[in-house]
Amino acid sequence: MIITYKNSAPTNEVSELITTLKKECSQIEIVKGENTSLICLIGNSKNVDETQVYVYPWVLNVARVSTPYKLASREYKKEDTIIDIKGVQIGANKVVMIAGPCSIESKESIDKIASSLKKNKVDFLRGGAYKMRTSPYSFQGLGDVALDYLKDASDKYKMISVCEIVSVNDLDKYLDKVDIIQVGARNMQNFDLLKALGKTNKPILLKRGMAASIEELLLSAEYILKEGNPNVILCERGIKTFEKATRNTLDLSAVAVLKKLTHLPVIVDPSHSTGRKEYVMPMALASIACGADGVMIEVHDDPTCARSDACQALNIEEYQQLLEKARQIANVLGRSL
Amino acid sequence: MIITYKNSAPTNEVSELITTLKKECSQIEIVKGENTSLICLIGNSKNVDETQVYVYPWVLNVARVSTPYKLASREYKKEDTIIDIKGVQIGANKVVMIAGPCSIESKESIDKIASSLKKNKVDFLRGGAYKMRTSPYSFQGLGDVALDYLKDASDKYKMISVCEIVSVNDLDKYLDKVDIIQVGARNMQNFDLLKALGKTNKPILLKRGMAASIEELLLSAEYILKEGNPNVILCERGIKTFEKATRNTLDLSAVAVLKKLTHLPVIVDPSHSTGRKEYVMPMALASIACGADGVMIEVHDDPTCARSDACQALNIEEYQQLLEKARQIANVLGRSL
Amino acid sequence: MIITYKNSAPTNEVSELITTLKKECSQIEIVKGENTSLICLIGNSKNVDETQVYVYPWVLNVARVSTPYKLASREYKKEDTIIDIKGVQIGANKVVMIAGPCSIESKESIDKIASSLKKNKVDFLRGGAYKMRTSPYSFQGLGDVALDYLKDASDKYKMISVCEIVSVNDLDKYLDKVDIIQVGARNMQNFDLLKALGKTNKPILLKRGMAASIEELLLSAEYILKEGNPNVILCERGIKTFEKATRNTLDLSAVAVLKKLTHLPVIVDPSHSTGRKEYVMPMALASIACGADGVMIEVHDDPTCARSDACQALNIEEYQQLLEKARQIANVLGRSL
Amino acid sequence: MIITYKNSAPTNEVSELITTLKKECSQIEIVKGENTSLICLIGNSKNVDETQVYVYPWVLNVARVSTPYKLASREYKKEDTIIDIKGVQIGANKVVMIAGPCSIESKESIDKIASSLKKNKVDFLRGGAYKMRTSPYSFQGLGDVALDYLKDASDKYKMISVCEIVSVNDLDKYLDKVDIIQVGARNMQNFDLLKALGKTNKPILLKRGMAASIEELLLSAEYILKEGNPNVILCERGIKTFEKATRNTLDLSAVAVLKKLTHLPVIVDPSHSTGRKEYVMPMALASIACGADGVMIEVHDDPTCARSDACQALNIEEYQQLLEKARQIANVLGRSL
Repeated sequence: MIITYKNSAPTNEVSELITTLKKECSQIEIVKGENTSLICLIGNSKNVDETQVYVYPWVLNVARVSTPYKLASREYKKEDTIIDIKGVQIGANKVVMIAGPCSIESKESIDKIASSLKKNKVDFLRGGAYKMRTSPYSFQGLGDVALDYLKDASDKYKMISVCEIVSVNDLDKYLDKVDIIQVGARNMQNFDLLKALGKTNKPILLKRGMAASIEELLLSAEYILKEGNPNVILCERGIKTFEKATRNTLDLSAVAVLKKLTHLPVIVDPSHSTGRKEYVMPMALASIACGADGVMIEVHDDPTCARSDACQALNIEEYQQLLEKARQIANVLGRSL
Repeated sequence: MIITYKNSAPTNEVSELITTLKKECSQIEIVKGENTSLICLIGNSKNVDETQVYVYPWVLNVARVSTPYKLASREYKKEDTIIDIKGVQIGANKVVMIAGPCSIESKESIDKIASSLKKNKVDFLRGGAYKMRTSPYSFQGLGDVALDYLKDASDKYKMISVCEIVSVNDLDKYLDKVDIIQVGARNMQNFDLLKALGKTNKPILLKRGMAASIEELLLSAEYILKEGNPNVILCERGIKTFEKATRNTLDLSAVAVLKKLTHLPVIVDPSHSTGRKEYVMPMALASIACGADGVMIEVHDDPTCARSDACQALNIEEYQQLLEKARQIANVLGRSL
Repeated sequence: MIITYKNSAPTNEVSELITTLKKECSQIEIVKGENTSLICLIGNSKNVDETQVYVYPWVLNVARVSTPYKLASREYKKEDTIIDIKGVQIGANKVVMIAGPCSIESKESIDKIASSLKKNKVDFLRGGAYKMRTSPYSFQGLGDVALDYLKDASDKYKMISVCEIVSVNDLDKYLDKVDIIQVGARNMQNFDLLKALGKTNKPILLKRGMAASIEELLLSAEYILKEGNPNVILCERGIKTFEKATRNTLDLSAVAVLKKLTHLPVIVDPSHSTGRKEYVMPMALASIACGADGVMIEVHDDPTCARSDACQALNIEEYQQLLEKARQIANVLGRSL
Repeated sequence: MIITYKNSAPTNEVSELITTLKKECSQIEIVKGENTSLICLIGNSKNVDETQVYVYPWVLNVARVSTPYKLASREYKKEDTIIDIKGVQIGANKVVMIAGPCSIESKESIDKIASSLKKNKVDFLRGGAYKMRTSPYSFQGLGDVALDYLKDASDKYKMISVCEIVSVNDLDKYLDKVDIIQVGARNMQNFDLLKALGKTNKPILLKRGMAASIEELLLSAEYILKEGNPNVILCERGIKTFEKATRNTLDLSAVAVLKKLTHLPVIVDPSHSTGRKEYVMPMALASIACGADGVMIEVHDDPTCARSDACQALNIEEYQQLLEKARQIANVLGRSL
């Protein structure tokens, strides 16, 4: 952190600030200029709050040159974090494919989808039980019974289940029945929930908020890591912009940036960001091409939806085609799938 | 809702869709064109899910011409909602002023601020007990003890307290000790929390999320209203944009839009959006000038911060100056303050 | 400018960089840390290009602590710039009102509008001759003849005319016939045009681009100032965001920020940003309340449009009402109108 | 276009509107509802201006269900546009690679880069002569002499040159010396320039503006097409968002959307959007994976820059590695490179 201040500052106040800063940061250097001078915090300044520096009226600027997160950073841990769930790894050489319906609609439906996916060697089964819906008049999910259907299907086909949690009070159920707990975009800064998840040992799939910067996503991951749970998977799913042709704007550069800044696995959800199935295949392939460790896609067996491009979910045949090309792209990058 | 479709659509599928739609909407008309035709839903179509229409591959476009929310709309309730708390009204002719520190730091500090505010005829005392912080390393608030300090101060000075809730599990405490429960921007789509608040009778101050559209804000209000609690106050506090000169971009047009679309009271928080106290006064005056029913501002008694423009909070003297001008602006609009 | 670099950097390369930097900046200090060190440029570093510093692989961070513009800054010129046009001042105590139709439609129409405005003591007459339209199929303006109509009307009623230029090749005509040349949002970074305008002495009304930061707006003003034309008026007119309820998001905080950073006059256009006349009055009042030096509003005499809220332009009666309230708001701030 | 209106509308005004609309659109149908009714324009409504409809106060909503552009649309021309330049095609099966320095710095430098690129079978040579720079203090390019250097190099190595035009008055020079004229992001809505380019026969590489929607990009292309020049190449180069980790946010979904909406070739510039060379390779591969017809990348021979990740340009060795992987990705999609 580098603090620029006016030379006209009262000496006693400058000393006061430096004394305060020394409590948080071991090495501090002063650089005197003609009109302005600098206080340079060379060591760790994570605990220094910029607003506490700005209280002095003679402070002109506070520039942070290091990251505000620690446990999530590559500096803290150089090697990629690999999360092992029932013998299947996320974050390793193999690109993981997560698939399933947006909402679990019936026992039969999720069983049928799981069966088809397993035949295609897909290891991860996603499905919604409780849904986060913008409108209170939209379908809110089947709830508890859907959790049971998901557990039955993932047990039967030896798949790893992924399901979004919407209330901290549902945590025990999720710990019991779900393999990977998903935190949706709208809950990325529900710190109460993040802290509770950090006290468990479950893998957490943390989706980027629609207005969250990459740094804010990593700070939300830090909330979980700091409580002791190292099993965090990050997920890019689109951000809010002025563009209306897609539901959100998928920020694929975030994959490249995250792979540089953090050791945590990074996956992409091209279904929710684009909102139309005709864009899912190209964006899924692009995700793998730019280095994602996995792709989560909506797949279902509804024959009606299967015919429309405007529908968000792929049917099994379309997903098979995607898998084939995805595998070849992964191979180009020296990865398996 | 108007559905445009290709004339080449299979007749049986079109009939199937129309049958489905008739369950949700009483009046449906068909308009035949040369190449494309229209299905027009004239009555209420709130329960029709667009994605269910898009499953048909021959559907070209679905356009919604009515609002997706109901209880929050001006169509549903023409007169302004006025919320009465201990005899003080929000949403009536008088513009309300809410003030206090970002975080409650001690019993003495909040007492001193409340005392000064009361002398200036400010009726509403805000103060943070549990804080939503982007970084887990930032100060998270004093917690329960701060709720007690706030209650003591608001009781002693006969003020109305406002405090942000961060966990649904804290609800009982808040019902007990706080007059207006604030839902922060990051929790605007924490539907679990909104539903719980909807089952109470407490006034809820609902802040707009940093990436939430005005329609999404109204849908979040609808979650609370739908559960039976009519006492919702909306708050504009800045949205995320590319501009970096202010912390967020205060969207004051939202005040004018909201006053047209909804009967609920609308207030503005110029402190958090701008992030610097030198911008708070102009934006507070602008808020009242464009029709806001109230302004919530950070005020505190810290003499150090009081000297710096980069600090977010005003001191009492600065706030007094703001009150004086705010009153005159309110008068220009035919309101009191 | 402060450059953070690794201590493992080759000594000769660090010397090389410092030698280069010394050509641009007189005072440079080095601060040695345990793992990283700093090169601090204390004097003027406007001409140092960050990308030239980043070419060294051992450079970790380049932080700029001073503004990249000079002539436009408050540091360079403390007192407000007041632009005098035919004896009327912009940027002085009196808030200026600019009004007129979006496009000039006929000689009679602009004459009639000018006459009504003059009766209401409005000094500035705006009207479009050549229009910037997103679609080539939209009306592109009457062109040259409209410039003549505008000149006739402003001469007859002794008003000051404002008209947007869309091609650098039209400059001579505009110098001849128009009092204030407007640069539209889409041309804010048409540097070819800005340089040409900088070589004239005409007052230039420079609109902020829809994706331009405040800093970029000031750098575009700097293009004009640098060529020798000091008469630049800045105009906030809304930026692009995800919000769809208004055409653009009017960033009124930009007024407060600009008044602090620059000495140039700042006006607001609430008509184009909101896109609906029912929002024009509240946002015009808010503009004055937060410190704008003027407001530019679409006013016309079309009786059809006059009846609709969805129309963007005010009629004369509505504008009179706005003027009355605007004057009172200006008075509250100690200004006339 | 579908117009929703209140049944309480005066009959004569409704008739008046319908008469007006019939001049622009051959088939119009009326649908009567209980409270509101619809006017449905079934045929072409491109020339109907929504603002002209909104002038009636009883109009509630105007929804456009067809695209506002015509010549650029897939409906107008189903087959991909293939642009042939000196026997090399853009928009055909082969993915095109465009490379070269940001600015042309000397005759020797551009010759050396061209030579290296040609050896790697790259057909397209880019290089800046006049530069669009946010700050007037930044290097503005070598100008005319750089155009000559570029022409010499592209002639000598039989490459196709690409160069950005910044002033409509430079057009003759560009027609003479450059094979593909680039319109930069900041000029995407410089309609004066677009019209002039539309009157030539040169291939135009049109970059998407930083705040331009996909629809606005297509309307800018329409300006060129409408004047008679069918040779337009679209280029995604990143949009403005709140994210600061990359210079802009590369919107790769735009590639998939554009390939669906238009027949024009679509390329991607991953260098300017990300701003750091370490992100260029992953985003270039992702661009091809999601269907781009080409990739334009900054490549140069400066040994200093070559060492830094923070630098934007790749050196020849890095570009060779990219070409190799890019070819394999293209092959997965059934394309050559």
